[in-house]
Amino acid sequence: METVYFNGKFLPKEEVKISPDDRGFLLADGVYEVVRWYEGFFFDMESHVARLKRSLRELRINWTGTDNFPAVATELIKINKLENQPSMLYLQVTRGVAKRTHSFPSPDVEPTVYACAWGFVPDTISRENGIKVMLKEDIRWSRCDIKSIALLANTISFQEAHENGSKECIFVRNGLITEGSRSNIFFVIDGTLYTHPESNHILSGVTRKNILRIAQELGIRIREEALVENRIRFIQEAFIANTSAEITPVTDLGGNTLGEGLPGPVTKRIGEKFDAEIKALKG
Amino acid sequence: METVYFNGKFLPKEEVKISPDDRGFLLADGVYEVVRWYEGFFFDMESHVARLKRSLRELRINWTGTDNFPAVATELIKINKLENQPSMLYLQVTRGVAKRTHSFPSPDVEPTVYACAWGFVPDTISRENGIKVMLKEDIRWSRCDIKSIALLANTISFQEAHENGSKECIFVRNGLITEGSRSNIFFVIDGTLYTHPESNHILSGVTRKNILRIAQELGIRIREEALVENRIRFIQEAFIANTSAEITPVTDLGGNTLGEGLPGPVTKRIGEKFDAEIKALKG
Repeated sequence: METVYFNGKFLPKEEVKISPDDRGFLLADGVYEVVRWYEGFFFDMESHVARLKRSLRELRINWTGTDNFPAVATELIKINKLENQPSMLYLQVTRGVAKRTHSFPSPDVEPTVYACAWGFVPDTISRENGIKVMLKEDIRWSRCDIKSIALLANTISFQEAHENGSKECIFVRNGLITEGSRSNIFFVIDGTLYTHPESNHILSGVTRKNILRIAQELGIRIREEALVENRIRFIQEAFIANTSAEITPVTDLGGNTLGEGLPGPVTKRIGEKFDAEIKALKG
Repeated sequence: METVYFNGKFLPKEEVKISPDDRGFLLADGVYEVVRWYEGFFFDMESHVARLKRSLRELRINWTGTDNFPAVATELIKINKLENQPSMLYLQVTRGVAKRTHSFPSPDVEPTVYACAWGFVPDTISRENGIKVMLKEDIRWSRCDIKSIALLANTISFQEAHENGSKECIFVRNGLITEGSRSNIFFVIDGTLYTHPESNHILSGVTRKNILRIAQELGIRIREEALVENRIRFIQEAFIANTSAEITPVTDLGGNTLGEGLPGPVTKRIGEKFDAEIKALKG
């Protein structure tokens, strides 16, 4: 039986009762985080907590429990006996339960806090061989920097990719490649690593941030600069990055085979250093 | 005690248990409708059902109960003894309960259907005297034609308006006035009625549609054409329209007093015909 966390308590998932008046259910008025458990530790929990605080601040949701989140997360892993398997920790905070109206409820309304954990099997085949991704106009809102639960655009875009045999949908806004429906994207052109700069059009990914650090440590030239879609033919390598996919090579970008159609050398170097760091943390 | 409708049953609201795995709660993967009850009938229920069907079709949510919605709605009014007061009927349909992932679950997953009704006091003062509205960049996604529950952008924009003493937030996208966070907007310039044409940037409002019909019947010139923000100084009258506000005059648009700062004659003519139709339907 799965145990989850709900408004201060650990309880069986079946006992969780989200109110139909919850602003998460009615208005997508909430934020979330997904953190990876590596059989012994959460990867870069500090960055996830910092981003969570930023999302809450941007939406003015007053949840005072953010600093307690790592302890709750660890407890969920333990209770559910997930210590020794690759797992995901999911946390969602909504503005709480109130009579439906667009304006915010009284500040006295307590946010709804829900967290759960699940084991999963990492997609090592995609990580080794690379994936095909599709390109699509970015139909999302213009506050993609907030990790909100208003994910309908991401959902229907990802589904479109899924149905045409792609593993991710990469968005193009005003001719510029922004990011994926659930990942950031990086490109290598003539040895330089490109990725969209932080802005209101992308989520500041925790894996993205670590990749930029790793690339710098490896002496790879970095340009945080949006790539114009019509420069695709100059791309030699690409990869997506997120908490579950880590660094997954892209070998086909919207029907364009990249480089030799195999994971490229820069992608591999970054991926190997990332893996080495995880291994070192495992001890 | 309030009675609501949930997945085929009428039950006390307190007994509704939305699953934390509901895609409405996790991903804003759902649609809704709000229909006005005029002490005896729902106004233009056919248009609401037609729009609901369209929203569901666009998102490929397979709810087969749409034709039964008017009966459910009427029953909710009766059970809650709202027959003789102005009321709102709210319906929400999500893609259902499934393990969290961006791609759609199996088509076997039943949508979640929730409906409720509440009495309200119409804002007759705003209707008579007009309101102040603010202008703000449209930060929403580009499928505003779908009446989805992914309303976070609407919510935070409306809240901003609310805090600066405005009754609505009107969006401007690429220099064009689109619509409000919860209403359509109309303008009168030299006797011609302007409103944004149907597109992916506005919701096709049921009240909007009826206003266009009424204006035509009154012999008012209509141009379904987006207004460039810098033409505001030419506007003599404006009004917002939605199911609860009906036709509410706008006397201040982003700090610009319109006309004499009072509801204008074209707005009044349309409002009066709308009211007369409601009165006739009441019999």
